[in-house]
Amino acid sequence: MEQLKQRIRREGKILGSDILKVSSFLNHRIDIIFLDEMAAELCRRFEGQRIDKVLTIEASGIAIACAVARILKVPVVFCKKSASATVSDDVYSVKIHSFTHNNENNVIVSKDFISKGENILVVDDFLANGCALEGLFSLIEQGGAVAVGAGIVIEKGYQKGGDKLRENGRRIESLAIIDSMSEKDGIKFRT
Amino acid sequence: MEQLKQRIRREGKILGSDILKVSSFLNHRIDIIFLDEMAAELCRRFEGQRIDKVLTIEASGIAIACAVARILKVPVVFCKKSASATVSDDVYSVKIHSFTHNNENNVIVSKDFISKGENILVVDDFLANGCALEGLFSLIEQGGAVAVGAGIVIEKGYQKGGDKLRENGRRIESLAIIDSMSEKDGIKFRT
Repeated sequence: MEQLKQRIRREGKILGSDILKVSSFLNHRIDIIFLDEMAAELCRRFEGQRIDKVLTIEASGIAIACAVARILKVPVVFCKKSASATVSDDVYSVKIHSFTHNNENNVIVSKDFISKGENILVVDDFLANGCALEGLFSLIEQGGAVAVGAGIVIEKGYQKGGDKLRENGRRIESLAIIDSMSEKDGIKFRT
Repeated sequence: MEQLKQRIRREGKILGSDILKVSSFLNHRIDIIFLDEMAAELCRRFEGQRIDKVLTIEASGIAIACAVARILKVPVVFCKKSASATVSDDVYSVKIHSFTHNNENNVIVSKDFISKGENILVVDDFLANGCALEGLFSLIEQGGAVAVGAGIVIEKGYQKGGDKLRENGRRIESLAIIDSMSEKDGIKFRT
């Protein structure tokens, strides 16, 4: 999505070798008009696909997931992170390692909100090594539902999570894929 | 808001003496159509008031804040919780005690996103003892902006946070105020 690439180039801040801050429009301050435009483009990518629900993970995925769900006229479910090791019987859970925060979270979703046979689209703001997405796909499949794929705003292509998931047959649609990024040379997008 | 009270009565689950789970439409699964109706009612309550920005706190406030901001055609900023005690120079910060999780978080917002003279509306899903709201008002005022009030979905009136803030001159609009709640006697709303 050309407009997104332009905004990342203009407003994104690269910190060190791996952190891209897009705080001005996506994950601290949210530009709602642009959020809706990105959501519309994600919906266009999955046009013709039956989608019964959108699944995301707190916190920064919630805004884009709600914007997609509004267009599709379906509910959103956001999975919760829990530092606690004890998980109750009424949830599906999966351990997800966060490289950003260098910790491991139990990510949980109530069994009430994943139903057998449902077609569920995962939506998130970032895709890096793919651990979060794999975890969300696992939660969907634990509940006997079908993961139809994932709609992502920004994919860090150089971390290979997206490519690995695509090789495994997952459908991953990202609005912008970054193939390399450095303070010195700036950002190169996959074309 | 009558429709909200009905949904809380029908779908809310009371746990122990104080926890109300409204996971089916507000803070785990989100019913987007109803979310937009609640946002419209919050906007109606603040009609005629200039609002330049909506401020909330991650995670479960993000959805309703975005829905309000969409109607008002203004950006959202969501404050972040940080367990880390070190806070950088480019943020405003405040300590907020969470009774739900029984811990204390540094809550931060980038100085870039609170501007002097702006009129900022706080939006959140729950109001209980008022600590979170007081913290958000403090962040707004640290930046020299004006807190025009808060729009809340569910206020636990019996915890008195809302009443205390109103006594201090804050404008707090809640779509449903619970005056008492127990597994045995159910939920009583303020009329």
